[in-house]
Amino acid sequence: MATAHTIDPTQVLTLDEPLTLDSGQTLPLVEIAYETHGCLNAAKDNAILICHALTGDHHVVSDHPLTGKPGWWVRMVGPGKPIDTDRYFIICANVIGSCMGSTGPASLAPDGEPWAMRFPVITIRDMVRGHVALLDSLGIDTLHAVVGGSMGGMQTLSLAANFPERARAVLVLASTARHSAQNIGFHELGRQAIMADNSWREGDYYGFEDSPEKGLAVARMAAHITYLSEEGLTKKFGRRLQDRSEKTFGFDADFQIESYLRYQGISFSNRFDANSYLYITRAMDYFDLAEEHGGRLANAFRRSRARFCLVSFDTDWLYPTSASRNVVQALNAAGKPVSFVELSAPYGHDSFLLDVPALDRVVAGFLG
Amino acid sequence: MATAHTIDPTQVLTLDEPLTLDSGQTLPLVEIAYETHGCLNAAKDNAILICHALTGDHHVVSDHPLTGKPGWWVRMVGPGKPIDTDRYFIICANVIGSCMGSTGPASLAPDGEPWAMRFPVITIRDMVRGHVALLDSLGIDTLHAVVGGSMGGMQTLSLAANFPERARAVLVLASTARHSAQNIGFHELGRQAIMADNSWREGDYYGFEDSPEKGLAVARMAAHITYLSEEGLTKKFGRRLQDRSEKTFGFDADFQIESYLRYQGISFSNRFDANSYLYITRAMDYFDLAEEHGGRLANAFRRSRARFCLVSFDTDWLYPTSASRNVVQALNAAGKPVSFVELSAPYGHDSFLLDVPALDRVVAGFLG
Repeated sequence: MATAHTIDPTQVLTLDEPLTLDSGQTLPLVEIAYETHGCLNAAKDNAILICHALTGDHHVVSDHPLTGKPGWWVRMVGPGKPIDTDRYFIICANVIGSCMGSTGPASLAPDGEPWAMRFPVITIRDMVRGHVALLDSLGIDTLHAVVGGSMGGMQTLSLAANFPERARAVLVLASTARHSAQNIGFHELGRQAIMADNSWREGDYYGFEDSPEKGLAVARMAAHITYLSEEGLTKKFGRRLQDRSEKTFGFDADFQIESYLRYQGISFSNRFDANSYLYITRAMDYFDLAEEHGGRLANAFRRSRARFCLVSFDTDWLYPTSASRNVVQALNAAGKPVSFVELSAPYGHDSFLLDVPALDRVVAGFLG
Repeated sequence: MATAHTIDPTQVLTLDEPLTLDSGQTLPLVEIAYETHGCLNAAKDNAILICHALTGDHHVVSDHPLTGKPGWWVRMVGPGKPIDTDRYFIICANVIGSCMGSTGPASLAPDGEPWAMRFPVITIRDMVRGHVALLDSLGIDTLHAVVGGSMGGMQTLSLAANFPERARAVLVLASTARHSAQNIGFHELGRQAIMADNSWREGDYYGFEDSPEKGLAVARMAAHITYLSEEGLTKKFGRRLQDRSEKTFGFDADFQIESYLRYQGISFSNRFDANSYLYITRAMDYFDLAEEHGGRLANAFRRSRARFCLVSFDTDWLYPTSASRNVVQALNAAGKPVSFVELSAPYGHDSFLLDVPALDRVVAGFLG
């Protein structure tokens, strides 16, 4: 079958100035990889910034350069789709700390060696600072909307709170304003799995033949379980055996769920940098929008003039409906316009990425 | 402070015959470590068998020989306690496959070398076969009751189904008749964490200075998250920092939950054998009592003349109330006497081990 070859539309912005971070450190030599779709109008007021999740990237519509798979949100973004590239200018940028083109621990530090664990610990707000620098470079003062799911939703909330003049509409999917103890726990076990891998070498594995791919695979397996609902897992896999009619009384992947998780772990290790996983999970664990604003979440939105929409999924146990409701209550307390819907979908946290027609209608309706 | 030194009451039974296993293999040289409390009466009809959980052992009341900590169920078992050693003869045996005295992968095979991964894969029913051999050696035909929580509950159900004449009462706490895809998934990531550890050496780490303790610690961290409720974690830890007033912008254990999980992982590695963890989790994943009995759970209990009691906890998301209800419905369908209660407790799955006074009353009431 012939495949249309697309040219990778990645563009790279190099910042003139070091980025000042929440830690107090500054990050020099910052590059931000991004792609855009659609046309920016003359008033420059039709831009939508899409923020990606933990293991996502700026390839929102374009094929992934390593896996060749379609962009992660092709079902939502495109001509005539809920995020309509015929009407809006869509921007999606790889977050700093990541490994898909924006500056992260695998990038070269000023001394010409990879940053590795010398890379400063970043926060969600630092990622957003990168986005805002990109908007500045594109001459966009105010976005039509900022949109994101999961960690993308954290960036979206952070932009709304810390740069309230930069977006007129804020759409947050399957996200939270604060990482819970359980959220932190799952991330911590993933980090420990990476750091337990001898190939991690305290982070200095660049240039070696082996990398901590086994540890990273375990981290991904743990995370992946949290992305799916118990109900969805039962429907999809139950206790069905993998390519065999009997249990083998061994440690092979007898069950489909085992085979699936192993595959998820290995394929992730082939496309993602372990140190980036450490830094980005750390940024998520540090995220607590109320804490940033005097301990009261409503304060975070005090200066906002945007309208908000929050969406949760009934089977999402990673960032459950109560986490979205918490944000909605804060917005109500701050007197801001907000709509909220809990959608029913069987896929758990990953629902925001999957085929949920009701979500398409909510997104299209809110963006107008 | 002076501490009373207790003599370890462990006894060891050596089986005369090899144990025939579900896999079709036989296990020679089987030893079963156990402890008993109270007195067996002349009719030998006042015995209660307590079955332990995944990482438990026969030290139900006696101090743990490695950690020095009190037995794992001292709050439930003793003179005048719900499982009353003044009235009942209490037996608790280490399961085969474990590492606390009963034969497992760390034991010596007939060739004088540790079994390691040559140890046969065992099932919950195989563990129960060990228990039944122990009852035979003690001359106990019929137990007053068999009791267990979590994996102990699986053994309890398996004994009731496969050796229905051996117990008059069956008490199952926070357990399930079948491991779900999510249950298997969490175990599989734990096994992969162990196997990813270079020190695992395909299981042949006995006699080396290092063992796969890092991988085992990660496995334990993952499991430990599933033992606690989100609500309990939030109450106990929230986002509180560990011995510091500010985040460090580093990868130390900033949060109490991180510090706690790291401690749980390391201390577990100091007391448990990694290969045993592989074998016991495998046995649990293979557990499906309906599948063993023609695909219909009610069939499993057809020959039973025991009375049953099932207890679940409202915050247990590992083996939720629906898993207990599934067993209750099967018992109803089989026309067997069963009582069932969902207790409210904030601790998640671990509730059956913790201070839940309502549980004490249910246990005492059911045992009579």
